[in-house]
Amino acid sequence: MEIEFIKMQGLGNDFILLDNRKGDIRHPYPDLSKKLCSRHFGIGADGMILILKSVAQDIKFRIYNSDGSQAQMCGNGMRCFAKILYENKILPQKKMRVDTKAGTVIPEVITDEAGRVSSVRVDMGEPVLFCRDIPFKSPNEIAVEEFLTVGDKECGIIPVSMGNPHAVMFVDDLERVDVKKIGRSIETHERFPEKTNVEFVEVVNDKELKMKVWERGAGMTLACGTGACAALVAANLTGRTSKSAVVHLDGGDLDIQWNKETNHVFKTGPATKVFEGRIRI
Amino acid sequence: MEIEFIKMQGLGNDFILLDNRKGDIRHPYPDLSKKLCSRHFGIGADGMILILKSVAQDIKFRIYNSDGSQAQMCGNGMRCFAKILYENKILPQKKMRVDTKAGTVIPEVITDEAGRVSSVRVDMGEPVLFCRDIPFKSPNEIAVEEFLTVGDKECGIIPVSMGNPHAVMFVDDLERVDVKKIGRSIETHERFPEKTNVEFVEVVNDKELKMKVWERGAGMTLACGTGACAALVAANLTGRTSKSAVVHLDGGDLDIQWNKETNHVFKTGPATKVFEGRIRI
Repeated sequence: MEIEFIKMQGLGNDFILLDNRKGDIRHPYPDLSKKLCSRHFGIGADGMILILKSVAQDIKFRIYNSDGSQAQMCGNGMRCFAKILYENKILPQKKMRVDTKAGTVIPEVITDEAGRVSSVRVDMGEPVLFCRDIPFKSPNEIAVEEFLTVGDKECGIIPVSMGNPHAVMFVDDLERVDVKKIGRSIETHERFPEKTNVEFVEVVNDKELKMKVWERGAGMTLACGTGACAALVAANLTGRTSKSAVVHLDGGDLDIQWNKETNHVFKTGPATKVFEGRIRI
Repeated sequence: MEIEFIKMQGLGNDFILLDNRKGDIRHPYPDLSKKLCSRHFGIGADGMILILKSVAQDIKFRIYNSDGSQAQMCGNGMRCFAKILYENKILPQKKMRVDTKAGTVIPEVITDEAGRVSSVRVDMGEPVLFCRDIPFKSPNEIAVEEFLTVGDKECGIIPVSMGNPHAVMFVDDLERVDVKKIGRSIETHERFPEKTNVEFVEVVNDKELKMKVWERGAGMTLACGTGACAALVAANLTGRTSKSAVVHLDGGDLDIQWNKETNHVFKTGPATKVFEGRIRI
């Protein structure tokens, strides 16, 4: 059969979106994702996202990686998903309740004067600072700038969880950091029993951060949404920025806002439709 | 403007094909190729191929790499090109004269019972064995199995040109060859003043070769068409195979035939349409 698809990207993280609300695509999703995501033999993407019917929520989001495994959620993918739902009039509302494998996520599209989606804001929930919940081994309940021994250096890090663990490290010059070497050492440091993502952050000013990320299990990536949230939380906690800032990542910019009344962190970022196509599967 | 494209691949080498016979795509091709070939932000491909009108020949073929540079010719791309010309009825004939930057190339489509193109045969011209023309520094006019010092080893190679230089090296077990290390050393060996492609070839039997390739300037690749031709020529010259053989490459199989009457080498291989799409440029 021939199916239609939409190719999108957010911060350089790219996805194939398939509308399977009618259920006519009956191929097993893991195999289909592997096939379609292949860069040379398929469409090529980091992941395949399915638009599905939901009973309990407005819509259902499911995502498969290029290796066929299923992911719980994905911030860059969720923005692409919300943009297409709104622009293609699949849902009429700007704020939608989405069923994901990680629970209900509520993205909100932000439109320009022409009614096109310019960015998408997602409620990322509350940051977790308690060491035992991150988890991070420490004599303190909350750890602000603790030092880890990495090789012959002492690295000051701030551990934060955004549902997944992060170690935020502030640096003077991001270009001079050996992200790979230090990232790998901290990722697998014995004080992070479930390993950790590592963010290297340079403060530009009170409203801007520059960041490079080493992702747990994935290594260097162009962008990490929960990492950007963790960076803003750590920066605000230590008086380095106010409660909102733009985070410049290799893949593009994210706007992070920490609402101190609700304690929720909001992430706003771009989503771009790249092309549409038809493929025989 | 929105343009239509076809995505194809041959031996894992993938291309975006654009029909610009009417000339309505006016974007500078190098920029367009860079943009469209980007794996995360564009369609993603190794190259962009243009179908253009020709006065002197049946059709014109132009190809740009993903970095925006123009390539002279490309065997995998030419097969994709010929298949689409025939299947989309752009040209009615099976054997077509194609204007390329490397002169006239004459591909011939081979069809199955349903009239679909199953493979494409291309006349690759005559092999060049004279050392000075390859170029390869040697006291002999023609070099069959000369030894190069690579590290602490002596490697027996057969130099052949198929328009570009090749060093073919026969090995007992392809899986045990350090393609990267030996490939790089031979590529830049002082006896190849214009550098060389390097083919590591294991003889399966009189009709089959297995090959891995180190391409000049590109490193390890899935397949190299001129390299497969050079391998067959070298194998036949040294009595290892008859004058035709299947060459198994990492990207797939090529059928190589050396016509001893005309001295021309013919290469037959697959081409696959992957998907069609529309993109705004």
